[in-house]
Amino acid sequence: MSQFTGNHVLSVNQFDRDAIEKIFHVAHSMEPYARRQKRTTVLDGAILGNLFFEPSTRTRVSFGTAFNLLGGEVRETTGMSSSALAKGESLFDTARVLSGYSDIIAMRHPQAGSVAEFSEGSRVPVLNGGDGANEHPTQALLDLFTIKRELEYNGKQIDGLHIAMIGDLRYGRTVHSLSKLLCLYKNIHFTLISPKELAMPDNVISAIENAGHKLTVTNQIEGVVNADICYQTRIQEERFTSQAEANKYRGRFRLNQSIYTRHFQSKTVIMHPLPRDSRMEANELDNDLNSNPNLAIFRQADNGVLVRMALFALTLGVDDLVSKYEREVVWYTNKSQSL
Amino acid sequence: MSQFTGNHVLSVNQFDRDAIEKIFHVAHSMEPYARRQKRTTVLDGAILGNLFFEPSTRTRVSFGTAFNLLGGEVRETTGMSSSALAKGESLFDTARVLSGYSDIIAMRHPQAGSVAEFSEGSRVPVLNGGDGANEHPTQALLDLFTIKRELEYNGKQIDGLHIAMIGDLRYGRTVHSLSKLLCLYKNIHFTLISPKELAMPDNVISAIENAGHKLTVTNQIEGVVNADICYQTRIQEERFTSQAEANKYRGRFRLNQSIYTRHFQSKTVIMHPLPRDSRMEANELDNDLNSNPNLAIFRQADNGVLVRMALFALTLGVDDLVSKYEREVVWYTNKSQSL
Amino acid sequence: MSQFTGNHVLSVNQFDRDAIEKIFHVAHSMEPYARRQKRTTVLDGAILGNLFFEPSTRTRVSFGTAFNLLGGEVRETTGMSSSALAKGESLFDTARVLSGYSDIIAMRHPQAGSVAEFSEGSRVPVLNGGDGANEHPTQALLDLFTIKRELEYNGKQIDGLHIAMIGDLRYGRTVHSLSKLLCLYKNIHFTLISPKELAMPDNVISAIENAGHKLTVTNQIEGVVNADICYQTRIQEERFTSQAEANKYRGRFRLNQSIYTRHFQSKTVIMHPLPRDSRMEANELDNDLNSNPNLAIFRQADNGVLVRMALFALTLGVDDLVSKYEREVVWYTNKSQSL
Repeated sequence: MSQFTGNHVLSVNQFDRDAIEKIFHVAHSMEPYARRQKRTTVLDGAILGNLFFEPSTRTRVSFGTAFNLLGGEVRETTGMSSSALAKGESLFDTARVLSGYSDIIAMRHPQAGSVAEFSEGSRVPVLNGGDGANEHPTQALLDLFTIKRELEYNGKQIDGLHIAMIGDLRYGRTVHSLSKLLCLYKNIHFTLISPKELAMPDNVISAIENAGHKLTVTNQIEGVVNADICYQTRIQEERFTSQAEANKYRGRFRLNQSIYTRHFQSKTVIMHPLPRDSRMEANELDNDLNSNPNLAIFRQADNGVLVRMALFALTLGVDDLVSKYEREVVWYTNKSQSL
Repeated sequence: MSQFTGNHVLSVNQFDRDAIEKIFHVAHSMEPYARRQKRTTVLDGAILGNLFFEPSTRTRVSFGTAFNLLGGEVRETTGMSSSALAKGESLFDTARVLSGYSDIIAMRHPQAGSVAEFSEGSRVPVLNGGDGANEHPTQALLDLFTIKRELEYNGKQIDGLHIAMIGDLRYGRTVHSLSKLLCLYKNIHFTLISPKELAMPDNVISAIENAGHKLTVTNQIEGVVNADICYQTRIQEERFTSQAEANKYRGRFRLNQSIYTRHFQSKTVIMHPLPRDSRMEANELDNDLNSNPNLAIFRQADNGVLVRMALFALTLGVDDLVSKYEREVVWYTNKSQSL
Repeated sequence: MSQFTGNHVLSVNQFDRDAIEKIFHVAHSMEPYARRQKRTTVLDGAILGNLFFEPSTRTRVSFGTAFNLLGGEVRETTGMSSSALAKGESLFDTARVLSGYSDIIAMRHPQAGSVAEFSEGSRVPVLNGGDGANEHPTQALLDLFTIKRELEYNGKQIDGLHIAMIGDLRYGRTVHSLSKLLCLYKNIHFTLISPKELAMPDNVISAIENAGHKLTVTNQIEGVVNADICYQTRIQEERFTSQAEANKYRGRFRLNQSIYTRHFQSKTVIMHPLPRDSRMEANELDNDLNSNPNLAIFRQADNGVLVRMALFALTLGVDDLVSKYEREVVWYTNKSQSL
């Protein structure tokens, strides 16, 4: 039992640094299970209600897999048209009913604030899997967890980190949440690289400054110099007022191996919230980076499973029991290898 | 092994009073598992084919959860466009094939009679989860089970019950099935409250009268006086010939706390098949009733899981084995509390 | 551990006769589990990623059930609109991410070659569940497995088989794959019965001839005389250049009990890839054949589960462990009976 037991996970704001370090400690301990060196049946018989009122294949499957890896079952709902919400049912009523069908709920919904509203009617803990433009706390946590692990691999830690965030910093929910989480740490250097139209919102800037962090704002990719982490996001052309305006930035923030070699220090880790657009004209993150060992984008996705396993285990109060219910893996696997 | 073992559940008409009491006895014994005081693995390895050719989130998840709570696995199909039925396959063929993929099937389909037709091709027992305007036997059973439990809580029993049914009694499938089930009991007083346009169909009225029950028909909500149970349904305005006609009834059957206090005896239990429309203009069942302990609508939904667990256990002949395969629940839960 | 362990199953072309006989040997050993004489927990804790980017109810459920029957869990994705593929993500990226969520993947996708492309990014074995017009290897294997079992029941074997293939031999993917597999065997007599417009493609004809098999080509159903197996496919009228042309063949290849009695030897086995069109005007495979014991179409579907169980067990290297993890079936079942 801990401060997490029985509680909702709605926002990154509910966590202090100690809480985050507890989550990461448990997430780290989940790796042998995710890599199939062993398995656990600690949640055998428990049921996750995986409610994706807004579709999102990878977040949905990542939650479901995390629960299965702990031994539990998953009952799933995708889409909204078929749901009672469409007939005027309140989120409170929906929660009251659906929380009778599971031990814990992971929920995504297109409307900001909906998951918190739902959680008030729920009789079981609710994990926010994204509520529109508002919050996606497990994404923010897996991003920070990835940063921590990548830095540790290079002998560093989050305190003192230099992170460059690139692209659409205005509408990109992930960079907002990640920035807020980093405000719990010390001596961070933020380099924010974006067109002026897509600059980081003022409230995030203020939070960074109030935390006493160093801030550099530029619209030149060259600003990435010396960053430990380069967090790339997608620029969507429809965000600009005119095609001419968009064209000015076309390819400006593109990353590929030759740009990496020219502008980045040799250990800069590349992150991206995925999916990346791999079409020729995307100018985002080229496939020739796939063989660069510092490309961490797929490790991010793997880390998402660990973080979600940790949140399930903590919320259901079984984090200390996981290893007690350990079992052997008898089937073929090569998941012990790193990406 | 019982009369249920290996048989389909297609209609409430197939049960006599003894059969219903057997189902309710088993449903009651399922409560400690649903409330997570303990769990069972009796159906570990069994597979439910959950075939929802017509979408219905809560009925689908309720069946799936009930099967998981008994230890089984669920393979699910939702919607019809992708199915072979759309290519001219007969329900017999579909059943022949799909029944090879599971040990038992729960099925919903928009067409009346479809589930019975399907069951003729099926090699495993089929539970009807609703076939259009025809039948939805698990809903009728959970309604009656709820009535029984609510009455028992107040020291009463089904025999001698006074039930008021309110709203759309013409098109509301649930009140038809419930009325038929109540014809198996003694000395029921039915008070039917609806606009004339939405009156209870003649065949249900005849069944009530033939069973020797007392019948009061009115279009005034005040008729609810002294009822033990008030079963509220939704009135859909499009059922009326004109807007002027609909307006005459607008709000007439609305329930809220002040109407309850004015017209109801203090222990009248409020039921509703859900979802309820919680939008301001709905005039159905106001949210201020949520703190009224006699509002049983969410207990109804919880009871649905118990009734479906009972039908699975009886149909698969394991009702006597459930407790033999009992296990401890090791994760956090507060489901032992009542709603 | 065998040649199968850890490898993808993308095409029937990757198997030689020994490999196929190994698969069939394991598939045969799965029957007591599928028929519920016993069950196994060998894959307890393993996760199948069941990725149906193109919907196909029965293939999807058959894969999922096969995995459940071995004790494993299933995480499922259906449809493509909600997927990152729609946002320009490459199949390589999708595979990189999704393969982190399971131990093995079954995948269907509308585009030829897509599953092979996906498999290059996957970190776990991928089983092709159909990639457009290209391949559907588990269907070809279950067809051949059915032929083997039906022949054995009649005291024969695949070598020396006389098979008649009827209907649309041009576009019917199943007859192409099955023909290629039969080229691994000896002394097969192929009778190909189709309108000229829908004749077997030249490359398949060449393969049959190069294997030294006997070939008869006709457009008369009477050619089926003495066949051991009659493999019927659907003729779609839109394949013809004109309605007049289509009308010439309308009903020409229809099978019903009276045609069977007139033209077929008494033990000719009827197969069909399903679904069959049971509407009156379909002229395909009439329902009056349902009581003919040689109608093997539903045994085909059941055999699909066995073949998929075998491929899972072989690919995950547990084929020798299945019986070690045997458990009793405690629920009611009548699946021990044959169809």
